[in-house]
Amino acid sequence: MAIKTALTSLLNIEYPILLAPMAGVAGGALASAVTRAGGLGIIGGGYGDKDWLAQQLLAAGNAPVGVGFITWSLRNNPALLDLALAHRPKAMFLSFGDIDDFAPPIKRAGIVLIAQVQTLAQARKAAGDGADVIVAQGTEAGGHGGGRATLPLVPAVVDALKGEVPVVAAGGIADGRGLAAALMLGAAGVVCGSVFYASRESLTHANNKRAAVAASGDDTIRSSAIDVARGIDWPAQWNIRTLRNPFIARWHGDLDALRRTAAAEKPRYLQAAAEGDTEVAAVIVGEAADLITADLGAAEIVARMAAEAEARLGSAARMLG
Amino acid sequence: MAIKTALTSLLNIEYPILLAPMAGVAGGALASAVTRAGGLGIIGGGYGDKDWLAQQLLAAGNAPVGVGFITWSLRNNPALLDLALAHRPKAMFLSFGDIDDFAPPIKRAGIVLIAQVQTLAQARKAAGDGADVIVAQGTEAGGHGGGRATLPLVPAVVDALKGEVPVVAAGGIADGRGLAAALMLGAAGVVCGSVFYASRESLTHANNKRAAVAASGDDTIRSSAIDVARGIDWPAQWNIRTLRNPFIARWHGDLDALRRTAAAEKPRYLQAAAEGDTEVAAVIVGEAADLITADLGAAEIVARMAAEAEARLGSAARMLG
Repeated sequence: MAIKTALTSLLNIEYPILLAPMAGVAGGALASAVTRAGGLGIIGGGYGDKDWLAQQLLAAGNAPVGVGFITWSLRNNPALLDLALAHRPKAMFLSFGDIDDFAPPIKRAGIVLIAQVQTLAQARKAAGDGADVIVAQGTEAGGHGGGRATLPLVPAVVDALKGEVPVVAAGGIADGRGLAAALMLGAAGVVCGSVFYASRESLTHANNKRAAVAASGDDTIRSSAIDVARGIDWPAQWNIRTLRNPFIARWHGDLDALRRTAAAEKPRYLQAAAEGDTEVAAVIVGEAADLITADLGAAEIVARMAAEAEARLGSAARMLG
Repeated sequence: MAIKTALTSLLNIEYPILLAPMAGVAGGALASAVTRAGGLGIIGGGYGDKDWLAQQLLAAGNAPVGVGFITWSLRNNPALLDLALAHRPKAMFLSFGDIDDFAPPIKRAGIVLIAQVQTLAQARKAAGDGADVIVAQGTEAGGHGGGRATLPLVPAVVDALKGEVPVVAAGGIADGRGLAAALMLGAAGVVCGSVFYASRESLTHANNKRAAVAASGDDTIRSSAIDVARGIDWPAQWNIRTLRNPFIARWHGDLDALRRTAAAEKPRYLQAAAEGDTEVAAVIVGEAADLITADLGAAEIVARMAAEAEARLGSAARMLG
């Protein structure tokens, strides 16, 4: 069975399930696995490592995948967009910044442009700038994001865009219940990060995957501590949701002090990340952590999510009487 | 048509829609209107004004309604519980604090005990303490609340309680799309505040209702500023979502200074609230503000929400193919 929405028609996919382009985590193997399972995998272009991106595009093989970028970061390194477009991705996914500079070349290339936003005002702007799909991302999402929550943001964006642009829900969705709920809100699909972060094909450290499976959504926090530690200059309107750990607990309330010791902390942090030391380096998952309960491959994640959503949608009318 | 869930069976109501017991806003007229429309109205017992509560119970007339209390505040004034129980409410709704002291007298009286929680850990505790219904309230809710979001919290609570206790979703729900989505998540119903705050029967100032209808969910903020201004000593784990206004913008980042001038600010704040001066006194609505688009009576709000949810649930299977 398939689930049919404006998103599945536009992308010619079986299930309206998109892989969040998690930087350094969503590589070619994960993206191609999601695509082969009937969704759309999107490689996380991250902060500008051209060799890494070229390697992951190669790793995706023949499976059609998308490529995602952090918009404000892409502005510092626009050649990455050319690299991505040269591979004829199925879609480009831009998040965290105005898309106005990048929309024309993407659209000229005939590539579907997906823009992720965190507020209603940003949704209106991105639609006006030519996005083919708007992803409304709630604050419960793992990784970078804003302050609004998915459940009320999605229908507000749907109303604002008057059905002219498909709206996709992101944040807090890790199973078929979340997918079915998003469709009831008027979304044409979902973007999932955390559940794929913990998947077999994810490129994050095995310790992070184990921590993600074990964690509760009660254990997450939005903070800028790890961006300050890594020396990544994120605009203040977005911070990053991760599991709380001792490092974040130490620095979250004292970012100025962390900035002052950044020269010492940055190599220490990066080494901890490389070694999977989750007491220091953050496990980047969101509030859907409660719903991630097993170490699965991406194909099984997609299949379970689709089957659970189909069961809920198929029996929804039975509640009426 | 009715919508049938474990909640509608337990409470013997037509639609799984509960009125949030908003202090000073959800009085007898609003509660009885929601009940008469097929949901369950719940009077907001607030901070301990016995005469007000007695008057509102009277105003509800013959319509069966519930009564809600702020649990930590009720502990300072337990006689209010006796007053409420003497009226044989259809349900007692407790939020913001452990229910362990209050569950035995409520259950001995044979009254349905609804406990609202903001985390998974609190849900487990409240279920263990005897709640008959658990409301999982997300941070997008207007009024007091915590940090977790509705969409991922609800299914996590459903899983944790293993189907033994009906779970109800609160926060961000103001129309039939939100109701249908909550049911897909496994909730047995919803609690709605903001949309009834703006209703004709709501006891808040007409200026507040107009502001709620005009506002976007982008315009809200969680802060403790107005509690400090009003001199209400809320535990730090909960703050209050309202529209941003100049007063909150001035004080949100400087609560210690506000505390020092509280003697002067409190009467000024209370007068502004009485006069409907929305530049000072907060309009207490949540992120669902985008979805509140008209000045309606409570009966019409319930009818529209139910009809929209029925339409979505009834046609959900059409997405499959």
